[in-house]
Amino acid sequence: MASSTDPEFAAKATTLPPKSDVPPSWRSNCSVVDVALRVLLFSATLVAIIVMVTSEQSEFVLGLPVKRPAKFTHSPAFIYFVAALAVACFYSIITILVSILVIFKPTLHKKFLLHFAFWDVLILGLVASATGAAGAVAYIGLKGNSHVQWVKVCSTYDKFCQHVASSTALALIAAVVLVLLSMLSTYSLYKRIRD
Amino acid sequence: MASSTDPEFAAKATTLPPKSDVPPSWRSNCSVVDVALRVLLFSATLVAIIVMVTSEQSEFVLGLPVKRPAKFTHSPAFIYFVAALAVACFYSIITILVSILVIFKPTLHKKFLLHFAFWDVLILGLVASATGAAGAVAYIGLKGNSHVQWVKVCSTYDKFCQHVASSTALALIAAVVLVLLSMLSTYSLYKRIRD
Repeated sequence: MASSTDPEFAAKATTLPPKSDVPPSWRSNCSVVDVALRVLLFSATLVAIIVMVTSEQSEFVLGLPVKRPAKFTHSPAFIYFVAALAVACFYSIITILVSILVIFKPTLHKKFLLHFAFWDVLILGLVASATGAAGAVAYIGLKGNSHVQWVKVCSTYDKFCQHVASSTALALIAAVVLVLLSMLSTYSLYKRIRD
Repeated sequence: MASSTDPEFAAKATTLPPKSDVPPSWRSNCSVVDVALRVLLFSATLVAIIVMVTSEQSEFVLGLPVKRPAKFTHSPAFIYFVAALAVACFYSIITILVSILVIFKPTLHKKFLLHFAFWDVLILGLVASATGAAGAVAYIGLKGNSHVQWVKVCSTYDKFCQHVASSTALALIAAVVLVLLSMLSTYSLYKRIRD
């Protein structure tokens, strides 16, 4: 905020509508919501990774004498999914720390708002594409595809598929949180416009 | 850049750091880049839809006396892909018109910047997830998956796969354009902050 002793600011304050003023409490609330959303992002991505990585299941398959395992590493889409969520999880840890720093040093707020808005959008692209990829492969596993003779997998590997479905749902939540974070950063910038 | 004959701009230039000033010409340049990117988004999504929809190919498959077709409608991921890109294409048409309106009525700039930043992020989530879904299914079609006996499709349906690959690449370009658009809107808001 401009200093109240600044004559130019004082002159403007009488002519601008009230919505241009951003009280410190509003910014503080924004920062707290920001940190809360980033903690939610961290939790969602971490649990999604754990659920996907622990999805291994071994079952007897028709015609084979030994159990065959199903792992997430068997599908490149699931490997990409885990890698993308690991990046998002690491990003959320860094931004939680930076957001907490901003709460205690509000002068850094404006600069970090821009960086957050930039990076949130990039990480959203990553998480959304990973969710789409994992969801598409999981859907083929669940329903199969009779046109190209791709058989259902989930009738045999039920626990594996439950893990994959839960992990994909959590990634979807992470993507929604990233959309909200990006909107919050943009709205915070918008509220600070004086002209 | 701002006209050097503008007395208000000249007065401010001596007291405020240069980055706080947003000369009208800068805004105008931003709007032109915005329209150009939206036209690129429109082209990429439209061509991607056309390429995907025209991907049908019929071939003789081993053991069958008649040709079997491969269409994008055979995969729910490709249907979602076309639907998502259709939404993005329609959105790009609306925003091109609004952006052109904003160039002629700069007073509307601030309000629409916020709406653009909000909606660009949502459409990015949609396009990125559709790209991920189509890419994952296309990859299985190209490489198959020996763990679950999903056979390669692209060795038979080469033209179909080329269409799908081109369409996915165009969707990736559309997603990158949406990231740039979102960053441009955010940066325009940032440049207008005066405190």
